Amino acid sequence: MLKLYIGNKNYSSWSMRPWVLMTQAGIPFEEVMVRFGTDFSSPDSAFKKTVRPINPAGTVPFLVDGDIVVSDTLAIAEYLAESFPGKALWPTDKARRAQARSACAEMHAGFRAIRNHCGMNIEADLAPQGRLLMRDRSDVRADLARLVALWDGLLAQHGGPMLFGDFSIADAYFAPVCSRLKTYALPVPPTIAAYVERVHAVPAVKAWTDAARVEHAFVVEDEPYRLAP
Amino acid sequence: MLKLYIGNKNYSSWSMRPWVLMTQAGIPFEEVMVRFGTDFSSPDSAFKKTVRPINPAGTVPFLVDGDIVVSDTLAIAEYLAESFPGKALWPTDKARRAQARSACAEMHAGFRAIRNHCGMNIEADLAPQGRLLMRDRSDVRADLARLVALWDGLLAQHGGPMLFGDFSIADAYFAPVCSRLKTYALPVPPTIAAYVERVHAVPAVKAWTDAARVEHAFVVEDEPYRLAP
Ligand SMILES: N[C@@H](CCC(=O)N[C@@H](CS)C(=O)NCC(=O)O)C(=O)O
Ligand SMILES: N[C@@H](CCC(=O)N[C@@H](CS)C(=O)NCC(=O)O)C(=O)O
Repeated sequence: MLKLYIGNKNYSSWSMRPWVLMTQAGIPFEEVMVRFGTDFSSPDSAFKKTVRPINPAGTVPFLVDGDIVVSDTLAIAEYLAESFPGKALWPTDKARRAQARSACAEMHAGFRAIRNHCGMNIEADLAPQGRLLMRDRSDVRADLARLVALWDGLLAQHGGPMLFGDFSIADAYFAPVCSRLKTYALPVPPTIAAYVERVHAVPAVKAWTDAARVEHAFVVEDEPYRLAP
Repeated sequence: MLKLYIGNKNYSSWSMRPWVLMTQAGIPFEEVMVRFGTDFSSPDSAFKKTVRPINPAGTVPFLVDGDIVVSDTLAIAEYLAESFPGKALWPTDKARRAQARSACAEMHAGFRAIRNHCGMNIEADLAPQGRLLMRDRSDVRADLARLVALWDGLLAQHGGPMLFGDFSIADAYFAPVCSRLKTYALPVPPTIAAYVERVHAVPAVKAWTDAARVEHAFVVEDEPYRLAP
């Protein structure tokens, strides 16, 4: 049985991607949650002590398949796409697949302003913080503009409802960003707002966000904007 | 004919990866260089005006194959691996391939301290700067320690000479890091120094670094440590 190690559902945007992907595709797996806890990113934290012996990169998510440890989100996506060819996790058309991989790799390395300033926090309402960021930070505005252009282009080209027609790795990759757009109430055109709603209605996304909302852990390292829940 | 758009060979670490990969694998392509120039990363630069109409992400490298534009390094690697299955660009063994993808994806998103503080600059000698960084920056030291552990583990497990035995996408992915280790003379164990030398002796890597050394462009945005060549 595949084992997927994840962090807290409320905070761990990277963990959300493969979990949503596997759940939505109906790939059976055992979920192992390694809770973040205090100072989890410091080298001697309980989190690191649990993760490092299995995944020396020291991060979640990672996927364990027998002897094989796949230690990074994008590599997990490729591993699953290869292991379950019948599930069409990437678009089956070569040109769309190249486009989908480009979008995911751009997400994997980029959108740093949104990632740094709008950390995922599913249960929180940080709309006022979002307005401050939009007012004060040109890098957040630039990331948002690029995101809107990318999604709008793909939705127009492929006709929706998801970025490449049917649900694919690309939608799983952007699901945590959809969550951030809601949490921080970032201003987007109606086409994008509608896509964000459609993503939240995907059963696996709903299952993750519902679970995140009842988690009620408060991890200070992931709470730059709140003193308490 | 495939067209690969790249930046300056002395500075563009991302461009180096697919160029080295395609050259070493003997995949024919036309090289198109978009020079960086002054303030190239600002939205209205000549660089952006050339790149954006073809690649809205606004970055190099990108690969053009007829109507298909692959706009990100890791997506280019996957596109080539898929298009040229006979070239074994990824390791052919499933477990090794998962490991190689994990390493490349970690590089794609991570090692940010080394990337931010040790920008690629093939023609420069920045050894004194490297010593200051090692003295003052724990994040650079941590990145270096992780890199050494990762490479040492792979070289020991697979027996070298490259990370997964034969030359693969993973070595192309780390080639710019090998160059930085030399430029900044970062301290590494002999096993790693020997791997760095072997990578520099790979014909495609040598061809790129030789070309970088005779380029003689001085791009201020990529020269935090020098006033002149
Ligand atoms: N490139 C990695 C990044 C994973 C990552 O940064 N995960 C976070 C949790 S969302 C983590 O484990 N952080 C611990 C730390 O940074 O020390 C991937 O895509 O899997
Ligand atoms: N994730 C992208 C990153 C590419 C990238 O950042 N390229 C640099 C040159 S090495 C660039 O085009 N910079 C222009 C800019 O940042 O505006 C990839 O892997 O292709």
